[in-house]
Amino acid sequence: MIDFNPLEWDIINSKPFQRLRRIKQLAWTDYIYPGAMHTRFEHSLGVCHTATRLFDSIVRKDAELLRSEHGFDDAGLLRQKQIIRLAALTHDLGHGPLSHTAEDCLPFQGGSEKRYTHEQYSAAIVRYELADLIENHPSNKNNYGIKYSDISSMFEGGLELGRSIVWKEIIAGQMDADRMDYLLRDSYHSGVTYGRYDLDRVINTVCLCEDEDGSGHVIGIEDDGIHAVEGLLIARYMMFTQVYFHKTRVIFDYHYGEAAQHVLSSKGGTFPAPTKDGVKEYLAWDDWRMLSEITANQNDLDCKAIRARDHHRLVYHTPECPSLDDLEAFEVAEERLKDLDVVVRDATKSWYKYQREEIRLREARSGKIRSVPLATRSPVVNGLQTVNQRRIYAAPSARGEALRRLEES
Amino acid sequence: MIDFNPLEWDIINSKPFQRLRRIKQLAWTDYIYPGAMHTRFEHSLGVCHTATRLFDSIVRKDAELLRSEHGFDDAGLLRQKQIIRLAALTHDLGHGPLSHTAEDCLPFQGGSEKRYTHEQYSAAIVRYELADLIENHPSNKNNYGIKYSDISSMFEGGLELGRSIVWKEIIAGQMDADRMDYLLRDSYHSGVTYGRYDLDRVINTVCLCEDEDGSGHVIGIEDDGIHAVEGLLIARYMMFTQVYFHKTRVIFDYHYGEAAQHVLSSKGGTFPAPTKDGVKEYLAWDDWRMLSEITANQNDLDCKAIRARDHHRLVYHTPECPSLDDLEAFEVAEERLKDLDVVVRDATKSWYKYQREEIRLREARSGKIRSVPLATRSPVVNGLQTVNQRRIYAAPSARGEALRRLEES
Amino acid sequence: MIDFNPLEWDIINSKPFQRLRRIKQLAWTDYIYPGAMHTRFEHSLGVCHTATRLFDSIVRKDAELLRSEHGFDDAGLLRQKQIIRLAALTHDLGHGPLSHTAEDCLPFQGGSEKRYTHEQYSAAIVRYELADLIENHPSNKNNYGIKYSDISSMFEGGLELGRSIVWKEIIAGQMDADRMDYLLRDSYHSGVTYGRYDLDRVINTVCLCEDEDGSGHVIGIEDDGIHAVEGLLIARYMMFTQVYFHKTRVIFDYHYGEAAQHVLSSKGGTFPAPTKDGVKEYLAWDDWRMLSEITANQNDLDCKAIRARDHHRLVYHTPECPSLDDLEAFEVAEERLKDLDVVVRDATKSWYKYQREEIRLREARSGKIRSVPLATRSPVVNGLQTVNQRRIYAAPSARGEALRRLEES
Amino acid sequence: MIDFNPLEWDIINSKPFQRLRRIKQLAWTDYIYPGAMHTRFEHSLGVCHTATRLFDSIVRKDAELLRSEHGFDDAGLLRQKQIIRLAALTHDLGHGPLSHTAEDCLPFQGGSEKRYTHEQYSAAIVRYELADLIENHPSNKNNYGIKYSDISSMFEGGLELGRSIVWKEIIAGQMDADRMDYLLRDSYHSGVTYGRYDLDRVINTVCLCEDEDGSGHVIGIEDDGIHAVEGLLIARYMMFTQVYFHKTRVIFDYHYGEAAQHVLSSKGGTFPAPTKDGVKEYLAWDDWRMLSEITANQNDLDCKAIRARDHHRLVYHTPECPSLDDLEAFEVAEERLKDLDVVVRDATKSWYKYQREEIRLREARSGKIRSVPLATRSPVVNGLQTVNQRRIYAAPSARGEALRRLEES
Repeated sequence: MIDFNPLEWDIINSKPFQRLRRIKQLAWTDYIYPGAMHTRFEHSLGVCHTATRLFDSIVRKDAELLRSEHGFDDAGLLRQKQIIRLAALTHDLGHGPLSHTAEDCLPFQGGSEKRYTHEQYSAAIVRYELADLIENHPSNKNNYGIKYSDISSMFEGGLELGRSIVWKEIIAGQMDADRMDYLLRDSYHSGVTYGRYDLDRVINTVCLCEDEDGSGHVIGIEDDGIHAVEGLLIARYMMFTQVYFHKTRVIFDYHYGEAAQHVLSSKGGTFPAPTKDGVKEYLAWDDWRMLSEITANQNDLDCKAIRARDHHRLVYHTPECPSLDDLEAFEVAEERLKDLDVVVRDATKSWYKYQREEIRLREARSGKIRSVPLATRSPVVNGLQTVNQRRIYAAPSARGEALRRLEES
Repeated sequence: MIDFNPLEWDIINSKPFQRLRRIKQLAWTDYIYPGAMHTRFEHSLGVCHTATRLFDSIVRKDAELLRSEHGFDDAGLLRQKQIIRLAALTHDLGHGPLSHTAEDCLPFQGGSEKRYTHEQYSAAIVRYELADLIENHPSNKNNYGIKYSDISSMFEGGLELGRSIVWKEIIAGQMDADRMDYLLRDSYHSGVTYGRYDLDRVINTVCLCEDEDGSGHVIGIEDDGIHAVEGLLIARYMMFTQVYFHKTRVIFDYHYGEAAQHVLSSKGGTFPAPTKDGVKEYLAWDDWRMLSEITANQNDLDCKAIRARDHHRLVYHTPECPSLDDLEAFEVAEERLKDLDVVVRDATKSWYKYQREEIRLREARSGKIRSVPLATRSPVVNGLQTVNQRRIYAAPSARGEALRRLEES
Repeated sequence: MIDFNPLEWDIINSKPFQRLRRIKQLAWTDYIYPGAMHTRFEHSLGVCHTATRLFDSIVRKDAELLRSEHGFDDAGLLRQKQIIRLAALTHDLGHGPLSHTAEDCLPFQGGSEKRYTHEQYSAAIVRYELADLIENHPSNKNNYGIKYSDISSMFEGGLELGRSIVWKEIIAGQMDADRMDYLLRDSYHSGVTYGRYDLDRVINTVCLCEDEDGSGHVIGIEDDGIHAVEGLLIARYMMFTQVYFHKTRVIFDYHYGEAAQHVLSSKGGTFPAPTKDGVKEYLAWDDWRMLSEITANQNDLDCKAIRARDHHRLVYHTPECPSLDDLEAFEVAEERLKDLDVVVRDATKSWYKYQREEIRLREARSGKIRSVPLATRSPVVNGLQTVNQRRIYAAPSARGEALRRLEES
Repeated sequence: MIDFNPLEWDIINSKPFQRLRRIKQLAWTDYIYPGAMHTRFEHSLGVCHTATRLFDSIVRKDAELLRSEHGFDDAGLLRQKQIIRLAALTHDLGHGPLSHTAEDCLPFQGGSEKRYTHEQYSAAIVRYELADLIENHPSNKNNYGIKYSDISSMFEGGLELGRSIVWKEIIAGQMDADRMDYLLRDSYHSGVTYGRYDLDRVINTVCLCEDEDGSGHVIGIEDDGIHAVEGLLIARYMMFTQVYFHKTRVIFDYHYGEAAQHVLSSKGGTFPAPTKDGVKEYLAWDDWRMLSEITANQNDLDCKAIRARDHHRLVYHTPECPSLDDLEAFEVAEERLKDLDVVVRDATKSWYKYQREEIRLREARSGKIRSVPLATRSPVVNGLQTVNQRRIYAAPSARGEALRRLEES
């Protein structure tokens, strides 16, 4: 059972949040796993629930430390909990139609070569659309005095974080509530057997750990939660290799990216920037609208590829973790097909960030407590090499010729 | 694992079938249970799978009877199985946007007061859109010689059924594959605990039973499957009372029915009739298009009620199985509110058809076999009274006044 | 996660409680469903957990009523919770080898025709074996002052209950924690699809209701929990008809009852009475010991029937809810077989207690609250007729002849 | 649904098979996870089911190869299937009380330092107790002519295997049906979240692969089953680290090994050898008998440790994959405690056999098929280092002193 307070209900009932009902969580994944029709709406409620459980577990365990070293008192902890819940609810508001798939249509940041991120849109929506609701809501104003930037800085980063920085990883980190929710939820609706892990155990063993320098604290895991965290990381590895990087999904993402740019072409090929006015316009885009436009666009080839499932087909690929030989062979194949109607897509994912960003483990041995990096204890985590699969897809008309050339070689 | 043959794949890849990806199974249910975003596409594949399992189980058990009394030989059974699979795949092709919710927008049958049914649209789509594909497909033409009407008569009824009539209940009956699939699937994606029953046991105990007159056979259940069938009927009762007739879902259906009529008003307020041309036009309607139109229609109150979740609220209702006193009190309340902006909705469902349509049970006792109606053996089934709950909903503006009047009384 | 305090851990670690690891929950059910090997140990921990959740839910909802009408303050509620947890943990301590199956070997109560119940043994064990531990435990003595009889009266009844009577139904009633736990647990380990219901919903809607006379309160359910409670009652009906009354289990229970009496014959055919000394002796009996003795008893026919699965076989039975004709036919069959080696077993269960013991429903309609009996609102509950199936089993040597005679008739 | 033929039913009903109902699958694991009470009986039925699915899947896919290269015709495949099913059913018949925990009580093989294995007992039981039943059973004699040694050589190895050697890995290998069943079953009854993997996918992608030399075939996996097999191997890693090597289970195993030797001391401290007479005597030992004897043995300290859960407690341990420093520190600790009542236990497991015994993957790339070792494609499998955790447990009386000495250091 998930309980919400009046402020949270008002946010849930707001237009930007209800829009998430019309943003599918997994874009085209239902073309491979037909059940995967769930939305960012459902996910955002789930992240709020899981973030709260993580917070409560840490406070139950490390209240003493939070008081003595970080200056939290009872009121401060309650306020922090409210901030975390609001950040969890709002962290995905900035997703465009079909979630991540739309990210290539976000504009470049003023002059730079870097596109805006969906987190920046989330922050802008909190700022321009929800700040008034949040800051003047009776249940916030009199009790917590939370500013909109207290919330958005949780997922956007920035100086405003202050001591909240200890908590940031609940919203954005290697063990964050977002990941904990989406793995289980995506697995459930897709109907696959991957993606499951022991959430209860992770929550029961999460704790504060000394950071690498011994100068502060980060969110880590107790000694006996090590296999639960391994389970979480492996679940992610499995979902990426089996679902998110599925060969058919990857090419639909490509066609969609092209199609969306064509739909947006009269507006410069991108969504509006996350300014006050831009955000308003951006929020008018959701899956319903984009898919209708794609349906209506009779002449565009990418729109047609999506509509008629007349998409490019995989004709060549390396293993997921290719050797240098594999990569060379790929380039040869690419060269051989270069005059045909083909596209190359790379599925790349680093499963785990080592070194400074490593998940830390709190070990108690012979009465002493210390904090060590997870990879020093878990050979499995150490083995999670970056996936870097390269693939060539050919248009239906070019497929026969492409296969012929490749077999000849 | 569900296997399909080339003909079946071609049907699945056809436009009318792919359109089902854009027809949500449960209309507005995701407004109450956010996970319920699944589509008729997924369901139709599931019905094909379950129908096949039912067919196989009956043949494994009653092959002798099917040969001696119904004239099936091996080829005939294989052909029948193919017909059943095709009927299962196509039986829902005729659903309009948001499935059942659209049914009030279907036109009246020539001159009569009866609207067309979605099954009639399914049949028309098989006839006008798929007949050519089916009848000329090499894997059908040379092996089975199945005509389009062999398929559509399975869900539409009609003289063409012939000896197929024994099998009709797999597609449309009190224990059909449709129901077996949707209960489990709707329950799964909605995330509720209702709707589960022992499908394996139902499939293992399904069999041919003598019909009421002893002159033919109907699909029934073996003695020791009685509680599995009870479970199926109770699952349905639970899903209706808890999910399909949920108070909020019911009022969204109302607003949607109105909104859809307004959207269609330029075309006479209904979808086109299932003629050759009408079907083409009908197929261009799906959830994406209808929801876009509803979103775009800024002035219509029902469109707005949906968009902004500004729907009428429940202000009065009888129990699910009301007494005469309850019904009288309801009419008094209705009278008292009649000048306000209120609507009355009735949620009515008979869980079980008794008498001629009763599920039959095959009993073996002391070496003799006989067939009896289920309700004579199951007090639980006997207790499944018709639900007939009446409800009054008030517009947001009228809600306060309505509640005041009702409390005064 | 189930948390226990030091007193609870000491009880769990005590010999009488650890003995429950050696008492199978479902006796011979693993002969039909091989996974059903779970024990009263696991179940007792589960009942404690569920009882706590029920208690917490009621207090969250009806704290006001408990204060104003029943005189509970904060300390009183915490003390009551501890009593309920201890009663939940200890309520099954009195089970004999193979749980209920052993009940025919309990002695008659002083001079009467009524056998002792396992609850009386549970109470005696609390009194003679655990009273000292409980009453002198620091975490009880200084905080709660709970006497052993505060606990045992929760499941044994009696004057000591006082205001605790409001809570008694959490431990022993139509919606008690015992039932809620065993249905789900038995279903899980047996691997059947029956026995599931929406526990979370039941817990969220449990509440205090006015009793029949309007003079006190009983534990009931809120209006919108009606289908969850229906689900609970139906789950029980399903588990009884499909698992607990399974034809093979019933005859093994018979052979075991006989075998146990033979094993105990040197001690008068029964276990010792629940006196101080008797309880000590009684606790030395568990499944391991009884099954070893049965294995060792080479000559006894019932022991052999169990060991070699050479049990009597079902040759005749009525429907579960027999008509008068069915019962008459049964007596004719019984008469016809009376000179053979046969036994008659009746499987009788009333699913629901109507009238005074009815589950009550708290209805809010037009601003008024009232309490009505569940059966007036639920036709399904009304349909749960008593099962009264009669069966004749024949020894293997007599089976052929018995079937022959029955077929002739 | 698992179907058995008459021969299989007779084996299931035989005494050696029914004895498996009295051999717990996981020994003392229920002391940690109370639900883990399931038996070898249930497991053996499951292995038969899974082995059949694996066989059927391979035949469906590689029938051509089996005919052309291994000389199987239809009759030969049906016979092989029956052999595999019988081997699956009987492979665990030779387990002693509490399964693996009893293996230290098996006698040494004539003069050697190697103890008999439970597989050798299984083979001996098939030979001395079931050969007559199997070889003379009408449904075998006339149809298959299977000899007892055809069956036992599947799990014992040996020359009799002949062309059956292709199939041996279904019964004993890195992807065998035994492992596939026990991971899921142990996980289910223990109630943990580990041990799950995608069995359906493994079964759908299992196939014949060229062996290392290209001279024959072994059972491997198709390209797109790679993550399913990874999942299987990870599930095993998780179950070992979390369940099978749980610190408390490990020490109970120790006490049990000692206690069983004491119980057997009048017979030389071991079970009888697997001779004709020895097997008869061996079969008379099951959990019931051994646990009764342990309960009865009032003076033995290990028996008491089990009975009263008065076991040694963990006082020192290395990480699961210790460094050389960790191992040195362990030896220092061991030295420091050597005069106390302590025992050292090592939990060692190599998750995966590389090189010759590697699971092979069948890759299709650009129209060519080849077979490569799994570890060359899966970094995760490559990362599965051997666990080699060392632990020191102290008797309750020595625990305080042990901890004191360790903290001082």
